Amino acid sequence: MATSPSAKRQKSSKDVPYELIYWPGLPGRGEHIRLALEEAGAEYTDTAHKEDGIKEVLAQIDDKNIGDELNPPPLAPPILKHGDLLLSQTPNILQYLGPRIGLAPKPEDDEDAIYRINGLALTALDGLSNEAHDTHHPVATGLYYEDQKEESKRKAKDYIENRLPKFFGYFERVLKGKASGDGPWLYGGSLSYADLVLFQCLDGLKFAFPNALKRLEGSGEYKSLFELYDAVKERPKIKAYLASERRQKYKDGIYRHYPELDEDASA
Amino acid sequence: MATSPSAKRQKSSKDVPYELIYWPGLPGRGEHIRLALEEAGAEYTDTAHKEDGIKEVLAQIDDKNIGDELNPPPLAPPILKHGDLLLSQTPNILQYLGPRIGLAPKPEDDEDAIYRINGLALTALDGLSNEAHDTHHPVATGLYYEDQKEESKRKAKDYIENRLPKFFGYFERVLKGKASGDGPWLYGGSLSYADLVLFQCLDGLKFAFPNALKRLEGSGEYKSLFELYDAVKERPKIKAYLASERRQKYKDGIYRHYPELDEDASA
Repeated sequence: MATSPSAKRQKSSKDVPYELIYWPGLPGRGEHIRLALEEAGAEYTDTAHKEDGIKEVLAQIDDKNIGDELNPPPLAPPILKHGDLLLSQTPNILQYLGPRIGLAPKPEDDEDAIYRINGLALTALDGLSNEAHDTHHPVATGLYYEDQKEESKRKAKDYIENRLPKFFGYFERVLKGKASGDGPWLYGGSLSYADLVLFQCLDGLKFAFPNALKRLEGSGEYKSLFELYDAVKERPKIKAYLASERRQKYKDGIYRHYPELDEDASA
Repeated sequence: MATSPSAKRQKSSKDVPYELIYWPGLPGRGEHIRLALEEAGAEYTDTAHKEDGIKEVLAQIDDKNIGDELNPPPLAPPILKHGDLLLSQTPNILQYLGPRIGLAPKPEDDEDAIYRINGLALTALDGLSNEAHDTHHPVATGLYYEDQKEESKRKAKDYIENRLPKFFGYFERVLKGKASGDGPWLYGGSLSYADLVLFQCLDGLKFAFPNALKRLEGSGEYKSLFELYDAVKERPKIKAYLASERRQKYKDGIYRHYPELDEDASA
């Protein structure tokens, strides 16, 4: 997989490894970037596995940081450094990486594909990552879960009953549509980073709401969706990554398992 | 302002007006697309002003729609049709439009700029649009505000006290940074669609939380931010658009004015 841009597009030296700047200790939003880099076999460094890595994160998001000559400061990680480019925002980083690491068509081959893939990734991140986070922080990200537990119960109930079927049904339709092409993937018959995003969201949801996810999978209504999940999980590089120490355990991030927010096993 | 892609990039005929597919009756997320098209003087149609326009929206998001040969179905409006391309997700549509209508550098002139601009737009949409919406729907988008009023009061208080200063402070830093260049704009010394996004967010917030916004503006801590707001508002094409009937009034959308969610005028 080529990791350097073609000579024509190269303006500054980017023939260097990608640098992921993200919190150590949990998969979080950084995981979407890791899965893309791992699937591509791209060279990258990760502050999660560097001594004092957290200091790099904190320096980037310091409220005195005004960026540099080329780059505005980032508000929050994940942050990707590549040569003199500094990027933030998960879907933005993925969109940059996609055509460069073989997880989206290059513009010269198909100039519209990246927008279709990006639309799918944004929808998965909205509904299955950001909203999943809000189930345990519906009032304020700055407060503890325990301080918004009652609101969380209401929110999680609605999320499981209404939002998950809405988003799962949507992706099931995408997979049934002609634009998805052959095979288990969302777009154009090839694995793209949107598939990896969807995989990671489903994996996190399985951790957070095991009973609800078991029921939804067992219903058979989202067969293609869970086939996509299994197909990603069996990719040789993804499989090796998931079994490695680089894959971190879910903890106090987006996906948290609070049994009182899941449905009953018998439901 | 050129609205057709350069010959080199043209693969299908896209020398046709843009078609915005969005709910009639409120600015909503569609407004970000409208402001970009209006500032560029681009030709476009808008279902908000078409007889039976709502039927076009409903057909697109019908849960039987599986898209076409090229395009996955959209989950929700805004949707942009351009030739045979159908796009959804606000930041995605803007990113497509930006270089085509002169609101972001073209990749051949500066291949990294679009990612920096997109990062800024995503951050504004996250914090100042999506989170603003959640202040009146913290529990469930499917429930009425009245059914989540108490949770809304807690959420809005936190939003005004903690989130607005965080995001306003961030954009103030961006504007102070070197990458913003000369003049009132966020990136590279030129107006980009990210400036228009930020303008629309501030405009909506001024409607939703007039007391809080007056205090925050009066504090002088976010001088560059409000200068950007004023500078966008004075752009001749934006000014004409805002005074036209095409600009719709805030109603039951993202930005809603519930006096009980704003702070007291004397605060």
